Amino acid sequence: MHADLNADLGESFGAYKIGADDQIIPIVTTVNIACGWHAGDPLVMKKAVALAKEYGAAIGAHPGFPDLMGFGRRNMAASPAEVKAYIQYQVGALSAFCRAAGVRLHHVKPHGAMYNMAGADINLARAVVEAVAEIDDSLILLALSGSEMIRAAQEKGLPCASEVFADRNYEENGALCPRSKPDAVIHDEEECIARVLRMVTEGKVKAITGRDIDIKADSICVHGDGPQALAFARRIRDTLSKNGIELKTF
Amino acid sequence: MHADLNADLGESFGAYKIGADDQIIPIVTTVNIACGWHAGDPLVMKKAVALAKEYGAAIGAHPGFPDLMGFGRRNMAASPAEVKAYIQYQVGALSAFCRAAGVRLHHVKPHGAMYNMAGADINLARAVVEAVAEIDDSLILLALSGSEMIRAAQEKGLPCASEVFADRNYEENGALCPRSKPDAVIHDEEECIARVLRMVTEGKVKAITGRDIDIKADSICVHGDGPQALAFARRIRDTLSKNGIELKTF
Amino acid sequence: MHADLNADLGESFGAYKIGADDQIIPIVTTVNIACGWHAGDPLVMKKAVALAKEYGAAIGAHPGFPDLMGFGRRNMAASPAEVKAYIQYQVGALSAFCRAAGVRLHHVKPHGAMYNMAGADINLARAVVEAVAEIDDSLILLALSGSEMIRAAQEKGLPCASEVFADRNYEENGALCPRSKPDAVIHDEEECIARVLRMVTEGKVKAITGRDIDIKADSICVHGDGPQALAFARRIRDTLSKNGIELKTF
Amino acid sequence: MHADLNADLGESFGAYKIGADDQIIPIVTTVNIACGWHAGDPLVMKKAVALAKEYGAAIGAHPGFPDLMGFGRRNMAASPAEVKAYIQYQVGALSAFCRAAGVRLHHVKPHGAMYNMAGADINLARAVVEAVAEIDDSLILLALSGSEMIRAAQEKGLPCASEVFADRNYEENGALCPRSKPDAVIHDEEECIARVLRMVTEGKVKAITGRDIDIKADSICVHGDGPQALAFARRIRDTLSKNGIELKTF
Repeated sequence: MHADLNADLGESFGAYKIGADDQIIPIVTTVNIACGWHAGDPLVMKKAVALAKEYGAAIGAHPGFPDLMGFGRRNMAASPAEVKAYIQYQVGALSAFCRAAGVRLHHVKPHGAMYNMAGADINLARAVVEAVAEIDDSLILLALSGSEMIRAAQEKGLPCASEVFADRNYEENGALCPRSKPDAVIHDEEECIARVLRMVTEGKVKAITGRDIDIKADSICVHGDGPQALAFARRIRDTLSKNGIELKTF
Repeated sequence: MHADLNADLGESFGAYKIGADDQIIPIVTTVNIACGWHAGDPLVMKKAVALAKEYGAAIGAHPGFPDLMGFGRRNMAASPAEVKAYIQYQVGALSAFCRAAGVRLHHVKPHGAMYNMAGADINLARAVVEAVAEIDDSLILLALSGSEMIRAAQEKGLPCASEVFADRNYEENGALCPRSKPDAVIHDEEECIARVLRMVTEGKVKAITGRDIDIKADSICVHGDGPQALAFARRIRDTLSKNGIELKTF
Repeated sequence: MHADLNADLGESFGAYKIGADDQIIPIVTTVNIACGWHAGDPLVMKKAVALAKEYGAAIGAHPGFPDLMGFGRRNMAASPAEVKAYIQYQVGALSAFCRAAGVRLHHVKPHGAMYNMAGADINLARAVVEAVAEIDDSLILLALSGSEMIRAAQEKGLPCASEVFADRNYEENGALCPRSKPDAVIHDEEECIARVLRMVTEGKVKAITGRDIDIKADSICVHGDGPQALAFARRIRDTLSKNGIELKTF
Repeated sequence: MHADLNADLGESFGAYKIGADDQIIPIVTTVNIACGWHAGDPLVMKKAVALAKEYGAAIGAHPGFPDLMGFGRRNMAASPAEVKAYIQYQVGALSAFCRAAGVRLHHVKPHGAMYNMAGADINLARAVVEAVAEIDDSLILLALSGSEMIRAAQEKGLPCASEVFADRNYEENGALCPRSKPDAVIHDEEECIARVLRMVTEGKVKAITGRDIDIKADSICVHGDGPQALAFARRIRDTLSKNGIELKTF
């Protein structure tokens, strides 16, 4: 049995620092590197690729909307053609740093609002899948378990991996509870850890309604911003290891 | 005997249009496509690649400074490490559209202020050369004849091609006369045509001082903005053809 | 009886030109100047203010979303607090050029997606009104007739003016038919002219359903991009004049 | 006898945080607020103005080059007309937040590369002065003691204040030693404090050559990034107070 821990990295920009890239990277097996639109800049990308190479983490591109001021978290009414081109641009940009460092680009995971919108809209989802497949159809799409992106990847035959969140509640249809809802985030660490273990081993999670739903946990997203997030990521890692689950990328 | 005509393309941005890409492309053999920093956006890049593919023009990346407001024409005190990373980012981005379209990226030509600065500063020139070579050492660097970029490419063993300008005067050291000088631009079309022919066939041009200097004319840069520029580009093309010079990319 | 013609101006950016500012300005009585976010830059703004001063046109700020690539036409999930701050920033920026030129800032008209979103959402509408009122409560808000922005301005006691469109169909509730609908735009110029005249003199327009609805036509928006748009704007101006309607700003 | 302590504030951007605005503001008497080009965004500007109002600090605009990626620290070959328009735009933007908060804009201090370039080039310096004077000729220009900006302000009759740096060495001509030189920054806090005191009380400082030069210390620039910078700022403040020098804005 195996599972993967992924984290978003390379989110600093110029003089601005976000995230403890050097501390989260020894914990995870897979990283998603921002590509300069919602976060990241060329020097930051280059450094993040070098760090991932050093620790042997699988490298993914983490493209987002052209909204640095909103960190790519605000929905934008971009057309499928725009989303497709935006992803190709950003994946290409990160690819260059991978080639320069002599490492392989492994996957693509859209960021923030683009992740959410393409997760819920089949036309955007197909745009994401086409964007990736046209560049390299061996690239893996990392997307929310049960989302339209997973569906579109399967339609097209693009390799994909399903992502789950340790500390988020799910709707009965498998969607993440929006952060605007009071119980969107689960604050009890024990409960989070137990949920992760169950998602990985049983493929089940209790939705916010109380009903069990199916979920596919190819990769668990963890955060690296702040000592608490790092400690929590380490606990997830240790729990999985103790339960005989090998940690490796998807 | 052969020569090449190149033009800068794909300089539109969002609702903003610059250049008659569809009219200049049938004239030239090589294009340099803006990469979204000083000009261009992902949809424009995709379209420019498709147009180049349709007409069989060789495709180059045309990276510039992060200065859309100044069209990349203003010198910026970017460090060699920054210039290198900026070029890799932009070349990578354009590469993705090439791969998606099933065409090969052929060369890299820095734009505007980056072209001028790296043409005159060996440290920046080496940064440009390293940027390109690390991504793919079969990519050709297109740069001003006699510039530091050509020197750095030769040092490193990176393929390079020397560019000349039909309507610009040269200093005795081979540098372009800065546009601030009164005679920087030659307005007499007959004279321009004669100079191009001589640069291609003899490898000589009369500098602004009146003395002949050596020049290498692997490629002649032409412009496609406006009916006059298009007509002038066609005249250069026709003159070269009539003189038995085959037009093909470097 | 009087009416106003307004046009969006100052939409060029750096080397990129949009609009024939110098040709539309002699036709209209009021201009809305882009403020550098969706279009415009400081030099363009300064020039547009000078042009408006020269022709005696009333000057408004035309703030938009931070989306130059999309020309501010794409909905963005910005919060009311963000929209409020974005408007204050942009109105302030334009004010500086007005003060430098010794002319008065007369009004504010949000642009594109911000105009549409705040026209339909009372919370965003109130954010727009607060933004303007806090800077100067004698500034006039120019907004779609019958929109939530007009309602919010009236609630707050901020002066406002209602805008109509010559060539757009209206829903029965007074909203513009979205451009995605087949009959959103009316192409018959005669019909457009007749509608404008009726909106100004009777305060009525036939909705797309065929039913007459009330409409307030303090100002008519015209376009200046291209010879046809200019000719059409002149026809509207001439028709209003011939019918004894004085053209002056609201 | 009196002196002023100023600090640059409001340098966060979107999700990115820089500076401990709430900790440095109780120490200083004057703040310079970034205006959204090299740092800052509308929400950050609004908050910085509110903080300055709460603590009674004098508020200045801190405009910079359009170079968020370089934090405005990289020289850009912008023309005097561009610099003038860029300053008016940014000063106007900050003014709007001041008006909305019911506080007065007190001064303008260019940032980073713009500060350095306009400090050394009389044409840029005059552009800065014109930019400010055209908006409001009672605004004070805060600039390096002995710089071309001070000279240009005096030429024009614009009020100005001379700034000194506690921890920087000076050339004999009064210019700051460039950071590229080994002794540009003075690391001995005691020495820095003694120098500040002497600059304020005697109007003298020992240049890097060892010779005393004249200097005008209307305001001392302090930093608020990190505990050490804050402690050092407090020491300067306390030393000035203990020596009977009243702290108030210029």
